[in-house]
Amino acid sequence: MSLSLNQWTTRRWSLAEAVDGCARHGLEAIGLWREKVTERGLAASAKLVRDAGLRVSSLCRGGFLTTGGEAFAAALADNRRAIDEAAELEAACLVLVVGGLPGVKPGEPLTETSGRDLAGARERVAEALAELAPYAGERGVRLALEPLHPIYCPDRAVLSTLGQALDLALAYPEEQVGVVVDTFHVWWDPRLFADVARAGRRIASYQVCDYLHPLPADVLLGRGMMGDGVIDFPPITRAVLDAGYTGDVEVEIFNADVWAADPDEVLATMKARYAEVVGA
Amino acid sequence: MSLSLNQWTTRRWSLAEAVDGCARHGLEAIGLWREKVTERGLAASAKLVRDAGLRVSSLCRGGFLTTGGEAFAAALADNRRAIDEAAELEAACLVLVVGGLPGVKPGEPLTETSGRDLAGARERVAEALAELAPYAGERGVRLALEPLHPIYCPDRAVLSTLGQALDLALAYPEEQVGVVVDTFHVWWDPRLFADVARAGRRIASYQVCDYLHPLPADVLLGRGMMGDGVIDFPPITRAVLDAGYTGDVEVEIFNADVWAADPDEVLATMKARYAEVVGA
Repeated sequence: MSLSLNQWTTRRWSLAEAVDGCARHGLEAIGLWREKVTERGLAASAKLVRDAGLRVSSLCRGGFLTTGGEAFAAALADNRRAIDEAAELEAACLVLVVGGLPGVKPGEPLTETSGRDLAGARERVAEALAELAPYAGERGVRLALEPLHPIYCPDRAVLSTLGQALDLALAYPEEQVGVVVDTFHVWWDPRLFADVARAGRRIASYQVCDYLHPLPADVLLGRGMMGDGVIDFPPITRAVLDAGYTGDVEVEIFNADVWAADPDEVLATMKARYAEVVGA
Repeated sequence: MSLSLNQWTTRRWSLAEAVDGCARHGLEAIGLWREKVTERGLAASAKLVRDAGLRVSSLCRGGFLTTGGEAFAAALADNRRAIDEAAELEAACLVLVVGGLPGVKPGEPLTETSGRDLAGARERVAEALAELAPYAGERGVRLALEPLHPIYCPDRAVLSTLGQALDLALAYPEEQVGVVVDTFHVWWDPRLFADVARAGRRIASYQVCDYLHPLPADVLLGRGMMGDGVIDFPPITRAVLDAGYTGDVEVEIFNADVWAADPDEVLATMKARYAEVVGA
């Protein structure tokens, strides 16, 4: 396994700076975000990454597919654009954060139009996948369903476990739909090891970061540098390897302190901690 | 199903005040906390509740069994005392919040001695249950394993899903070990309905409160009055009924606003919301 920088970990850096940072620190892969790619331009981004000899371990992110009606068609259109971008970037996968309950937004109070139909939201995801998987397949892009920690079920992802993501993925060819194993989201799951084994080569991305304790007030920023939280990484890493995963290991950290730090120091720490505690 | 007040919902009230409140509001059952029972005295508490004609729908709580060594023996001794108390109170069950990773405390930063061995902590729970279940059985007390939302896995309960709690319970006679279905903790679980059906008469307690969005900074206080959050109660209530549950429905809310309000108003709201949104 080879270490990859998810560029949101060093979000102060532009795409060019992040690519340069990876090269200087000897990394072979980078995980890109659509916002950063758009900032630079798609073709220019693809060229930058290729010229630096980096693999694109993932593109973040498509998804937010749980609202019906007109919003559903708009979400599908946006996801098709994301697939096109992933194809041009030759990304190993397009990560899908599927969306929460309709009308429930991160950090905002509930309103009269906030939905409570969890089963319906999950149905929308399945319907969307039926539209998007063949489209992705035609373009050689692999969709990667990301189960998020249940704390994000209201507002970000009604996919809450690896098993649930896997059950959805299994209806499609392996090269069209895989799953993400992100330690922050799945470390607590009593079925984790069984489902990692069951996933096998469906694992499209292995992402590592720690689960901080106590969580900060904004729970989105509870992701920490490996070793700073409660996760025991080696058993999870071994299980992912035993399942047949041969891709890169992305470090994706949303954390106010990490974002405030010098990105070069963040990369140095990330490499050291990866060697010390991840067990790859 | 009949509505029960978990007395932590009106924690400003002493046990005597809560018993009186239940009687005035026409409730037939109350969920007690050991702290409040100790304050009043065990025998006096039992008499108070009995004289008021109330059922004790649960006693909260035993558990915190995940630390090994000397702490383990001390925890077992405390749990045996809790079982004795539940017997004297004729509680329908003793709720077990099993504990988190050893040395990881609610609200406190991690230290050098904080554990990361999740599998080991889960083993301790199974070992403790083997000690406690027969002891409870001899005293006619039913232990109720409570899976807590995965957000509490580090510091409060390494039991994170109903299925996991049920798998532990099934090794013992139905009258010795059951499980708690608390909507706050399990609403997100994609296997919820299958596991409620599988639990059948193992369901020892059905507890309702809503899951607020956004969560407050102290996530322990993210429990809201039914109707104030994202949970769709009727399908869950129907599933619990269909599984054969015939006990009381406890309302257990940890919430700064609810605790600050006039307890009599809280009870009135609780009754109204129960009728409106719980679907019992």
